[in-house]
Amino acid sequence: MTGTLSTTAERLYLSMKELPIVSPHGHCDPSWFAQNQPFANPAALLVTPDHYVFRMLYAQGIPMADLGIGAPGAQADPREVFRLFAAHWHLFLGTPTRLWMEYVLRETLQVSQPLTAQTADAIYDDISERLQQAEFLPRALFERFNIETLATTDSALDDLAHHKSLRASHWPGRVIPTFRPDGVLDPLDPNFAANLAQLAKITDHSLDSFDSYLAALRMRRAEFIDCGATATDHAIDIFFLGPLYLSVAKGTATQEEARRFYGHMLIEMAQMSIEDGLVMQLHAGSRRNTNRTILDRFGRDMGADIPLTTDWVNGLDALLNRVGNSTKLRLILFTLDETTYAHALAPMAGHWPCLRIGPPWWFHDSANGIARYFDQVVETAGYFNLAGFNDDTRAFLSIPARHDLWRRGVALHLSHQIERGAFGLSGAEDLAPLLAVDLARQAYRIEV
Amino acid sequence: MTGTLSTTAERLYLSMKELPIVSPHGHCDPSWFAQNQPFANPAALLVTPDHYVFRMLYAQGIPMADLGIGAPGAQADPREVFRLFAAHWHLFLGTPTRLWMEYVLRETLQVSQPLTAQTADAIYDDISERLQQAEFLPRALFERFNIETLATTDSALDDLAHHKSLRASHWPGRVIPTFRPDGVLDPLDPNFAANLAQLAKITDHSLDSFDSYLAALRMRRAEFIDCGATATDHAIDIFFLGPLYLSVAKGTATQEEARRFYGHMLIEMAQMSIEDGLVMQLHAGSRRNTNRTILDRFGRDMGADIPLTTDWVNGLDALLNRVGNSTKLRLILFTLDETTYAHALAPMAGHWPCLRIGPPWWFHDSANGIARYFDQVVETAGYFNLAGFNDDTRAFLSIPARHDLWRRGVALHLSHQIERGAFGLSGAEDLAPLLAVDLARQAYRIEV
Amino acid sequence: MTGTLSTTAERLYLSMKELPIVSPHGHCDPSWFAQNQPFANPAALLVTPDHYVFRMLYAQGIPMADLGIGAPGAQADPREVFRLFAAHWHLFLGTPTRLWMEYVLRETLQVSQPLTAQTADAIYDDISERLQQAEFLPRALFERFNIETLATTDSALDDLAHHKSLRASHWPGRVIPTFRPDGVLDPLDPNFAANLAQLAKITDHSLDSFDSYLAALRMRRAEFIDCGATATDHAIDIFFLGPLYLSVAKGTATQEEARRFYGHMLIEMAQMSIEDGLVMQLHAGSRRNTNRTILDRFGRDMGADIPLTTDWVNGLDALLNRVGNSTKLRLILFTLDETTYAHALAPMAGHWPCLRIGPPWWFHDSANGIARYFDQVVETAGYFNLAGFNDDTRAFLSIPARHDLWRRGVALHLSHQIERGAFGLSGAEDLAPLLAVDLARQAYRIEV
Repeated sequence: MTGTLSTTAERLYLSMKELPIVSPHGHCDPSWFAQNQPFANPAALLVTPDHYVFRMLYAQGIPMADLGIGAPGAQADPREVFRLFAAHWHLFLGTPTRLWMEYVLRETLQVSQPLTAQTADAIYDDISERLQQAEFLPRALFERFNIETLATTDSALDDLAHHKSLRASHWPGRVIPTFRPDGVLDPLDPNFAANLAQLAKITDHSLDSFDSYLAALRMRRAEFIDCGATATDHAIDIFFLGPLYLSVAKGTATQEEARRFYGHMLIEMAQMSIEDGLVMQLHAGSRRNTNRTILDRFGRDMGADIPLTTDWVNGLDALLNRVGNSTKLRLILFTLDETTYAHALAPMAGHWPCLRIGPPWWFHDSANGIARYFDQVVETAGYFNLAGFNDDTRAFLSIPARHDLWRRGVALHLSHQIERGAFGLSGAEDLAPLLAVDLARQAYRIEV
Repeated sequence: MTGTLSTTAERLYLSMKELPIVSPHGHCDPSWFAQNQPFANPAALLVTPDHYVFRMLYAQGIPMADLGIGAPGAQADPREVFRLFAAHWHLFLGTPTRLWMEYVLRETLQVSQPLTAQTADAIYDDISERLQQAEFLPRALFERFNIETLATTDSALDDLAHHKSLRASHWPGRVIPTFRPDGVLDPLDPNFAANLAQLAKITDHSLDSFDSYLAALRMRRAEFIDCGATATDHAIDIFFLGPLYLSVAKGTATQEEARRFYGHMLIEMAQMSIEDGLVMQLHAGSRRNTNRTILDRFGRDMGADIPLTTDWVNGLDALLNRVGNSTKLRLILFTLDETTYAHALAPMAGHWPCLRIGPPWWFHDSANGIARYFDQVVETAGYFNLAGFNDDTRAFLSIPARHDLWRRGVALHLSHQIERGAFGLSGAEDLAPLLAVDLARQAYRIEV
Repeated sequence: MTGTLSTTAERLYLSMKELPIVSPHGHCDPSWFAQNQPFANPAALLVTPDHYVFRMLYAQGIPMADLGIGAPGAQADPREVFRLFAAHWHLFLGTPTRLWMEYVLRETLQVSQPLTAQTADAIYDDISERLQQAEFLPRALFERFNIETLATTDSALDDLAHHKSLRASHWPGRVIPTFRPDGVLDPLDPNFAANLAQLAKITDHSLDSFDSYLAALRMRRAEFIDCGATATDHAIDIFFLGPLYLSVAKGTATQEEARRFYGHMLIEMAQMSIEDGLVMQLHAGSRRNTNRTILDRFGRDMGADIPLTTDWVNGLDALLNRVGNSTKLRLILFTLDETTYAHALAPMAGHWPCLRIGPPWWFHDSANGIARYFDQVVETAGYFNLAGFNDDTRAFLSIPARHDLWRRGVALHLSHQIERGAFGLSGAEDLAPLLAVDLARQAYRIEV
């Protein structure tokens, strides 16, 4: 992540570089920090769990099994996996994965050699050795990364044991949960019935009525809040929001009824957010697991999720017209359909008091993706209807790299704005820390 | 609107800076110029009527009523409204509203202090005083702005009294009406029946047949032409163009029949344009009044209009295949769906003789919006299938600022084209005045 | 195509400038090289057959007949046609047509004067004279252009006589056919029944069963392979892929059944590609012949083809889930809907082993179109899932100009990547020849 910033951009970047990291949405495992055990090996840390990495390798014909991914019996020597990754490192030229990984290797793991097929073994050994050292344990890295707050994403059925243990410990690192209830809201989830049974069990509620179901959800939200949660998170592929109440617990609903039920439950969630203050996040428009062979053999989330177009205007109509004028509600929208930035999300966030636009997500969390986001969003929504940055990652080591890429993107954007006459340097200097940390704190109601 | 243009861009900008303003589409009130009374106060001039301003304030939780907007009884002290606006001026950083307003304050109202909560009262007093001076009366500003032609937008039911009085006066300013017949063409307009009754009355036609209805419309068009009109204007949300004739005057049509009727009437309008030469404008793809609470309490056009995607290819198929090969027809298309620039509007305008592409509209009339427009439109449509610039505003004072921003955008675009080798400086110098004024004159058949 | 490249971009451009041209997809006529006769006249060479040219002239009100296009009896003096073109040369400012044509006139035809109404006759005479010279015959130009391989596009019913004659000749130029079977796969083709009869005749197969139909298609593919073909090409407007088998040969299928049949046949083609190794190309999303008057009077492909939006994710679902995990299949996707670059094509090509993304096509094969393509595709798909460049033209003389514009676009893109820190100069220097020629060779399995 060298490159040649202009003098103005460089100055703005430096003003943000050392600010703490606020990470209000992501997928790190709270057990890492609760247990503080060393990471297993370089492949398990950097390659195997990263869907950005293995989807690219798979696209170029490398079998998933060679990466040690998939079927329970599948085992691959982590050193071999790392070699395979190193031998195909050129495939990532031009992608943010390459930038993130270079940053991690250079800045965090202190690897000075470039990664090649020839250096793979030596680098593997270096990293393996470091991972056993005290300063590379999860809590030490958390502190070195200067993370102020890290939110994880946790099932509504999670017992929050790790979060409770963290709060009971004397470690000052702030790791908080996020309430993710898809499994108990979406009747199309294959485990929906089992999930409801589990919800009944852990809340000691019968769930024999809609009201008791809502009450159980409220109980769980309260427990998350007790553990420090400030937000919920919801994924949806296509919107079917409608005011239809129906019993779907028995699994007799049609697919459309199930979608309507889930849509309706998002409105209930918004109403609960008005009551309990949890910020609501909506990640929309991913068609999951589009490769059925991969799904059958290797399971979910194996790199075959592809974005769909999203109709935010009609899709959110019922929800917004029910609760959207409440200034108590905070609803953060994330899209994979960039065509909606300028013609839907920015005009909507520039009108509805409850809305904030989340940062570029997933395939769009990249240098050009960030540039397109600012280009298309700011002129209509301004800066104060944005939610700052999220890294949204389960790759813990990449967190500083991702925030660094964002801050460089902010610096470039602001320097272009100055060139185009949108505002002067002092305006940009006010906006820089806002975009780096303050908007994230404010949007997620994270108190410092 | 300072910023640092390149030398080439600066040179091109300066070649356009002093050209007269041609404003062929907008929403100024003709009574301002007919009566030439002072503007009421700074809030009523700059804040209250500007939906760009109050939608942003509302999005950040400021009640509409505090801005003096809405329910008939609602009254707010204009000074308080102006203070509220000044205290939230930072919200507009990065938006064109901020650039326009800074230009108006600095260039037109000669305010030298920056706008802040602290300076709000002094600036309010300064402006109030100026508004009473002769050189700030509407006609004086019109002349100072160097406006060559200003078109207003007028209901098909308008008596054109102000326009007639202007034409009868000795004032040389050229203010012309535009025929806007939505209310008598669209059966889904809530006042459609009453509007037809009114149309019958003012034209002294019974409207008991489709032919007499068409005849009444032709009469009104002729009256507009007598007052100097060169164009019509039509808004549509979603296209349902079809060859269906039906009686909808009694209000028994289904919603789909009503949409088809309106679609058909656009074809009739195009045919009338071939007869009488009025340039036809089509503004498509805005879903109006999406916030029903705001609609009920404060009325229409209160900042909750959000763009929809627009299917120009199939939507205009019936109209174009009926009349699109006529070189007598001039049809200018405006979109809020930028995704249609490169794959629909540019290829269509680069084929059909009747079509011209209107400038970036509404949320896209901004520095980046202008850049995206040129980037996506020119390579397929060239420059001669564009309609130049429209300010499309009811904020009279902002007209010079909007044309200035466009001219800066043109200069930047042309200088980039030179850098990329599309043409040399002399090519750019030919195109600059074309894009600044000549294409607008030509597209709207405005004779100088 | 002058313009001012940065030093880095210039260096990268020069590293590609003299590389051979690989043209794996286009529409040149093989008879030009088989017969090696002089081109007829400047109008027939440069104006009349170029839909980019006549669509722009038509859009500005010039009748097609004046260009000598259309109805069989229509004749226009080629000199008059060339004069008309020269007199309207300004209309092409800002379009790639202008850049291509300037390059052809300057570099290939050695015309030193600028094209104007005044110079039209002299330039016409110059070109006419040159076209009779030996060094301007098709084979000489092919060699001067440094073309390594040129693929034509040939109907599945073509007798390949010119290709056979080329292979039998001693001329070393490599011109290969491409199998284009739309006419015998798509029941909505107006000549479908006649085409099937012709297919039966030339393969001596009865086609009375689905199996014999497939066998006839396999025979024809084998003949194309014998003539050097490495690829097939398929056009589709809207996807209706489904597993439905049905008899459509008798013409009794509904439109939807016909579409499903065609969709299914694309899956059969993909399965045959796995067997015989032909690379499969899919050009999707053009609504053909949208101007019915032009279609009736002048025939197909007269400039009225307009892009549609394309749903790649759902549209290719059935095909990909049948054959998409095969590393033997190579499927290259071309879109006219740029909105699918970042949210569909790049994520899909970055996952499915069979997929490659084709270069910007048709309206998007332009300086800005190329920039948008790289901007939106590379970060998710990387470079190695791209198919390099295609000129896709029937304008033989423009081939070097088009490859030159692409190489300039590559140089600009790579130099921006260096500036933004994506990689250094050596990374860019590795990628330049890859994007200029190697990826095209690899994607199309063209052996050198």
